[in-house]
Amino acid sequence: MSRDELKRQAAEAAAAEVADGMVVGLGTGSTAAFLIEALIRRVGEGLRIQAIPTSERSAAQARAGGIPLTDFESHPAIDLTIDGADQVQVGRLDLIKGMGGALLREKIVAAASSRLLIVVDEGKLAARLALPIPVEVVAFGWQATARRIAALGGRPVRRDFVTDGGNLILDCDFGTLADAADLDRGLRAIVGVIETGLFIGRADAVLVGGAAGVRRLTP
Amino acid sequence: MSRDELKRQAAEAAAAEVADGMVVGLGTGSTAAFLIEALIRRVGEGLRIQAIPTSERSAAQARAGGIPLTDFESHPAIDLTIDGADQVQVGRLDLIKGMGGALLREKIVAAASSRLLIVVDEGKLAARLALPIPVEVVAFGWQATARRIAALGGRPVRRDFVTDGGNLILDCDFGTLADAADLDRGLRAIVGVIETGLFIGRADAVLVGGAAGVRRLTP
Repeated sequence: MSRDELKRQAAEAAAAEVADGMVVGLGTGSTAAFLIEALIRRVGEGLRIQAIPTSERSAAQARAGGIPLTDFESHPAIDLTIDGADQVQVGRLDLIKGMGGALLREKIVAAASSRLLIVVDEGKLAARLALPIPVEVVAFGWQATARRIAALGGRPVRRDFVTDGGNLILDCDFGTLADAADLDRGLRAIVGVIETGLFIGRADAVLVGGAAGVRRLTP
Repeated sequence: MSRDELKRQAAEAAAAEVADGMVVGLGTGSTAAFLIEALIRRVGEGLRIQAIPTSERSAAQARAGGIPLTDFESHPAIDLTIDGADQVQVGRLDLIKGMGGALLREKIVAAASSRLLIVVDEGKLAARLALPIPVEVVAFGWQATARRIAALGGRPVRRDFVTDGGNLILDCDFGTLADAADLDRGLRAIVGVIETGLFIGRADAVLVGGAAGVRRLTP
């Protein structure tokens, strides 16, 4: 099976966990697109949900498919958010997210959710998180912010990209992370850092699409 | 003496601490305006400095008066920043800042500075910090962010104002603060919070304009 088929399979399993009446957070990225596709089908079959998307891209897909959208003003609490991830640490289920540039909204939606369900193909699993970490920083003074990130041992590279909020993303290579939670605290303490792509202790479950089917991991 | 005269007196004393060749961070607000006025005079008399302003307002005043401006690309490290404050805790010299709406840039500039010199009139001194704390939050999902701030014991009120970065300011009344550093950590840990108006352990000195002249406080 192709990677896309693995993702689709896991996304279908995730969509099956959505129940009538839920407020659902919709992630962003290729796996989230499969999820939204599956939810559009279920809504067509009569499932009643309202969704809060984490990007314009996901909003457009959901809207076009007839999923009713809502917002934080109407629903400051979300029942279930389903999203992809760039890397998942097996065991703890800590995540690196945000390669797609939507990490801030993804994190805000995840933080407002009772449950966060992550969907990946098995290629995303790792014993230790080791990808460069996307860090969203304020554009003003970003050079000074990058220096302080470098002082923590990272190598920040500015992405040629401005977020919806007018901020910058620095992809920060820290090699293999010995203590992701500690690094996250250190990064967040830096003035000018808005959010990091480290999702520590946030995933309630991870659905993994693999050759032998979909596995469910819990922390 | 009027409050403005006390501020001006202290701002003049602060301007006298600026030395030839320095990169100077310029604060924002009524006291900072007196400081910039004094620096314009000194630059006219031959002082050579470069300045990084914390707002368009301060940039415009400095530029009009002939103070050469620079930026973080040329100077990621600042020698001395001089700024006002809304409230100063005597003893520790922790601050509440940001009533003027420029807290994010003020904090970024302060964090990039070797020294932070604060200038206030004596009416700003307090035994305990007790003003509402301006907290800059991401506009997306701010209602959920406000709920989490309220869960820490605060009463967040949204200011009718959007910052340069397109963010919102919530003025968060926590009453008299028992432990400002702890509250700052708690607020910064909330997803969606960009920065707080609490400046903990950042001031190197405070110049206080009072009826008997300018006093210098150090932590």
